[in-house]
Amino acid sequence: MTNVEISRLATKIRAVTGLTDSPIALHEPYFGGHEWQYVKECIDTGWVSSVGKYVDLFEQKLSEFTGARHAIAVVNGTAALQVALELAGVQAGDEVLMPALTFIATANAATYLNAIPHFVDVEYRTLGIDARKLADYLVDLCIIENGQCINRQTGRRIKAVVPMHTLGHPVDMDPLIQVCERFHLELVEDAAESLGSYYKGRHTGTFGKASAISFNGNKVITTGGGGAILTNDSELARRAKHLTTTAKVPHRWQYIHDERGYNFRMPNINAALGCAQLEQLPAFLAYKRSLAEHYMRALAEIPNVSVFREPEHGQSNYWLNALVLDERSTTSCEEIIEQLQAEQIYCRPMWKLLNELPMYRDLPTMPLSQSIDIERRLIHLPSGVKSPS
Amino acid sequence: MTNVEISRLATKIRAVTGLTDSPIALHEPYFGGHEWQYVKECIDTGWVSSVGKYVDLFEQKLSEFTGARHAIAVVNGTAALQVALELAGVQAGDEVLMPALTFIATANAATYLNAIPHFVDVEYRTLGIDARKLADYLVDLCIIENGQCINRQTGRRIKAVVPMHTLGHPVDMDPLIQVCERFHLELVEDAAESLGSYYKGRHTGTFGKASAISFNGNKVITTGGGGAILTNDSELARRAKHLTTTAKVPHRWQYIHDERGYNFRMPNINAALGCAQLEQLPAFLAYKRSLAEHYMRALAEIPNVSVFREPEHGQSNYWLNALVLDERSTTSCEEIIEQLQAEQIYCRPMWKLLNELPMYRDLPTMPLSQSIDIERRLIHLPSGVKSPS
Repeated sequence: MTNVEISRLATKIRAVTGLTDSPIALHEPYFGGHEWQYVKECIDTGWVSSVGKYVDLFEQKLSEFTGARHAIAVVNGTAALQVALELAGVQAGDEVLMPALTFIATANAATYLNAIPHFVDVEYRTLGIDARKLADYLVDLCIIENGQCINRQTGRRIKAVVPMHTLGHPVDMDPLIQVCERFHLELVEDAAESLGSYYKGRHTGTFGKASAISFNGNKVITTGGGGAILTNDSELARRAKHLTTTAKVPHRWQYIHDERGYNFRMPNINAALGCAQLEQLPAFLAYKRSLAEHYMRALAEIPNVSVFREPEHGQSNYWLNALVLDERSTTSCEEIIEQLQAEQIYCRPMWKLLNELPMYRDLPTMPLSQSIDIERRLIHLPSGVKSPS
Repeated sequence: MTNVEISRLATKIRAVTGLTDSPIALHEPYFGGHEWQYVKECIDTGWVSSVGKYVDLFEQKLSEFTGARHAIAVVNGTAALQVALELAGVQAGDEVLMPALTFIATANAATYLNAIPHFVDVEYRTLGIDARKLADYLVDLCIIENGQCINRQTGRRIKAVVPMHTLGHPVDMDPLIQVCERFHLELVEDAAESLGSYYKGRHTGTFGKASAISFNGNKVITTGGGGAILTNDSELARRAKHLTTTAKVPHRWQYIHDERGYNFRMPNINAALGCAQLEQLPAFLAYKRSLAEHYMRALAEIPNVSVFREPEHGQSNYWLNALVLDERSTTSCEEIIEQLQAEQIYCRPMWKLLNELPMYRDLPTMPLSQSIDIERRLIHLPSGVKSPS
């Protein structure tokens, strides 16, 4: 792309977002509902912390929205994923399959359990795990012993696979579920980015044993900082609540904890924000979908680029729109981002592949040709719900 | 104590707290300052999450109040202690000395680093670590090899000691610092309960390499959920901020993380609450001190009990007042708590000693005669700042 073409791109982004003369953030939250009312009630009644009605209400509303039988509100998405992996039986020394193309939290969460991330490739269609390529890889790499999948190279058990619904686009779950069944793997979805995204009509995060959602300030809805564990299993839900509240045994006064738990509960004041945000979620999703359509139309006439479109098997929340550079593009993402940021349009590249970071460099990794190519050709476009339509 | 005497105790508690005909919580937060103004500003501007001015302001004000050169706000006190231990160089397989008489978080935090809690006894005067008894214990147990303290029984390195300022009462630090020097141990204070408590005029949490404070809903001030790391070491402060913000390397757009960090930052909306609470902290401390004095006077005439008084070497924040049953008391804490709770006075016993919990039962432990006796004779009295004086 020439500088002139990048300038045209900038103009189009300004037209689509409606922000013609101000800096454009990548994402901004929008508080247009009952946020004040609910948060003020917490302050007025003194119920801001570990007990209060909004945590229960937020969990109930989240369960209703996603269709997951249970939702457990926690302090952030990373904590949610850590506990979801623990619920799925991931233990110290286990390997956990996950995309290399994901936010750092996916790998970090596994390491907090002393498990080992094992990086796999993603596909162009979804930006998520390529189940067919994974199956071919595992056939060569693993043996099944006593109903467990053993990595023949490392001798370690591979316990789980963590699909991440990248930018909100649903992973192709059916072939991945087949891989899980064939190789005796637990499925734990990293749905941090995909609240409001569906695979064949079913909400992401409701397929595996347990999954994780995030409500960080950059997500579709926010609680300031927060996350949730989703599960359809009542016993796992009970255990999730127990583990995330320091494993304290219910008693009128005694302090007895029966296992090592975590201080991961979401404060009531953050849940209050979440309740107000959830009420607006359908409107946010509609706005994000229309923003995606506007981007697609507006950028159609810019040569050598396109806007990433949700896969046919599902409905994306379009959390973040993405610009895809054509294979033939001789301009790098960096060059485009540099110029857009100079014009105060705060675009971002994809995350650096996790297997290229110093602390995760020596972990098991399958060939990542597609991830490498996608990482080098995608740019996150401003997608905040704050912008007027 | 007879039932009649316990009833008199209940009447006195009601008189002291001024809550004559309502349930009396153990502690309640009080929001009488700029809480709503600051929180509303977060909501109105959209800055509720990981970025915003209140996190910086809260850290600055906390640093000013405590005299610690640096304060780093995090998601809760447990996370703060985990990171403080990591900053002090605690590694997997190290032992960490800590009181058995403490809240579960002290031990949990060490285990998240795969370190091993090693329980030590506390003294009557402070309810905190008995440094002289600890020194005698370590002389027999340890050898110093290459400047490191090695537990001869387990072969493991003992890396750090974690004094916890129980109920806000400052541990006797001078002899403990001598133990640290003599046995090459790092000092990491668990100051979760002691914001506003001083040892010989110096704020608790400012003595060791790094320390942890909590702002849970039951603490002197609250942020809903939150904590902070204190340190006087600028390099450790920089590292604390880096580790608690996913170890992301500052860059205008790239996602590069150079080590395994944590998603532990405090959301801006919680920090806003904290800023308003900090402004009222001197008033809260004055109230708690006067509450303690009222308890001491009012309960003086009840036989076989007393109210725990701050040690002479420092000033306690009197976070929680405690009733001490006389050695000769034939009534158990449980009996008294049972009757008080029946009258809607929600007293609590001390925490169960950590070495008696199932997951920490087999860890190294010194003889705990004083802890056992204190645990069996102390009752937490209602100490909320909400109660009118």
